[in-house]
Amino acid sequence: MAVYTEVSDEALVEFVATYDIGEVVAFKGIAEGVENSNFFLAAGDERYILTLYEKRVARNDLPFFVGLVEHLAERGLRCPMPVHDRAGVVIKELGGRPAAIFTFLDGMSVKRPSVRHCQLVGETLGRLHLAGNGFQLTRRNDLGPDGWAPLFSRFSDQADDISSGLGTLISSELEHLSRHWPDNLPCGVIHADLFPDNIFFHRKEVSGVIDFYFACNDAFGYDLAVCLNAWCFETDYSFNITKGQALFRGYQSVRALTPAERAAMPVLARGAALRFLLTRSYDWLNTAPDALVKPKDPIEYARRLRFHQSIDNPAGFGIEQGA
Amino acid sequence: MAVYTEVSDEALVEFVATYDIGEVVAFKGIAEGVENSNFFLAAGDERYILTLYEKRVARNDLPFFVGLVEHLAERGLRCPMPVHDRAGVVIKELGGRPAAIFTFLDGMSVKRPSVRHCQLVGETLGRLHLAGNGFQLTRRNDLGPDGWAPLFSRFSDQADDISSGLGTLISSELEHLSRHWPDNLPCGVIHADLFPDNIFFHRKEVSGVIDFYFACNDAFGYDLAVCLNAWCFETDYSFNITKGQALFRGYQSVRALTPAERAAMPVLARGAALRFLLTRSYDWLNTAPDALVKPKDPIEYARRLRFHQSIDNPAGFGIEQGA
Repeated sequence: MAVYTEVSDEALVEFVATYDIGEVVAFKGIAEGVENSNFFLAAGDERYILTLYEKRVARNDLPFFVGLVEHLAERGLRCPMPVHDRAGVVIKELGGRPAAIFTFLDGMSVKRPSVRHCQLVGETLGRLHLAGNGFQLTRRNDLGPDGWAPLFSRFSDQADDISSGLGTLISSELEHLSRHWPDNLPCGVIHADLFPDNIFFHRKEVSGVIDFYFACNDAFGYDLAVCLNAWCFETDYSFNITKGQALFRGYQSVRALTPAERAAMPVLARGAALRFLLTRSYDWLNTAPDALVKPKDPIEYARRLRFHQSIDNPAGFGIEQGA
Repeated sequence: MAVYTEVSDEALVEFVATYDIGEVVAFKGIAEGVENSNFFLAAGDERYILTLYEKRVARNDLPFFVGLVEHLAERGLRCPMPVHDRAGVVIKELGGRPAAIFTFLDGMSVKRPSVRHCQLVGETLGRLHLAGNGFQLTRRNDLGPDGWAPLFSRFSDQADDISSGLGTLISSELEHLSRHWPDNLPCGVIHADLFPDNIFFHRKEVSGVIDFYFACNDAFGYDLAVCLNAWCFETDYSFNITKGQALFRGYQSVRALTPAERAAMPVLARGAALRFLLTRSYDWLNTAPDALVKPKDPIEYARRLRFHQSIDNPAGFGIEQGA
């Protein structure tokens, strides 16, 4: 949780005046968001989120991220809609940072997802994959399979400082995935980080998807494997197959998985677990003790990876045959 | 800025259901507030602030703080109004912490106050002092003159680690104030921390006063001296007497200072500067490097104190004769 950049009242009022959204009514920094500074903004009779992009987000990627949510929102996905200023511009500057205003989404994220939530997440992910069709910009997955070995090489000599045996777990997994990673699955725009923090629910339905700052072009099945990791494990690291069934059922109610995608799910699940194990391990070792955002425990994903290593059949995750 | 306590969606929904305010629509941690965890809450068609009281606020003081804002709001001061649950209760429990819901105040705090802001702050402080009349509970000022020497004794041997000569500055000032502090000034409920963070403006008027967690019974003139320190200095530590005039003029347009209060302003200003110098010095030396809230620089208040030491006539602060 963090607000990295302070915005003066004078600068804000001047900034908002370039939009056709009325006068500032309220403005508060939000204790959410790891990469950027986010503010609750009330102007006229509406609510918005103002985002200042901090240095971890590459400026060159902003047209992709902002254009994507606009593309998805126009196609009916509930996500923050970027607001254009009077000149039609979306990515502007405030406090020395790139900045954009988005519509506010009602709803709350869930801390302990139910089976029903998993089904809704699956449906939403399927809709997101279909809605991304036709988006003109592309972005490669920096944290995809090609990036894993280089990322590991940056901390491999310290991996066992986190937990004994972690270095061997990762290096042998990298070796396995390099031999088994599928390269012919259906691809498109994926969210790549659809954790419970990033979906809001309201009145028992999905009210919005947020935080597209890892979105990229990659395999749809990999995106689903990220969700499997993020939504279907209990706090004691046990895998809840009923939640897995609900996730896949929800997804397939919108977009049927191909036989190749279904068959690849065990290896995709391992890859998704490894991706978060790698980034969390790196952050764990490289976050200053006085950082505003505490690093997340990497071991959660070592536990998930070890579980996935025990599964060699998609049925073990609860995948049923598609409609 | 901080949210110290996480609130699960389930716990929140259950908590809000005990109020007659409708269903939760949105909920976000706010990156403001040093003592407590604050959340933006939208429920039904209204906006609220949910506060969880962390350990720095004594539970025994909560009836005073919460009762006071209700008393002041009922008398027309714009401040957060505590919301009663269906059983009439205001101070409840959530996430293992005392918790209360307040109405949301529109407006923004100013980072660089103008002369006009100083006048409005003076008026508002005068209204607050009058509105506090009749409030039945009392609370002593823990950070008043009696508390200064004991607080200094907790870090006096380290004071010069902050800045050379600081220990001598503080000890000689304590000695001066012990001889000159007035004990017969008009007293009542004071805010005691009316910094720019704690007043919101909207459409060029004051839209609300927040953060009454240092409020107590003490001299009205001391409260005004806190504002003089907090509002009338420029960022280069120079005193802006035009702002001082505006502050006192605004205050006296609501409540005329007595001759004794006017005469005491030089010593009150020194005491108010010392109070913030002491607490900031203590926090500076005792805040863990990984704390969520960074300590404020005590030296700002050493600079103010040295300025006040050069003033022996209330006219030097811009005080005019009352109406």
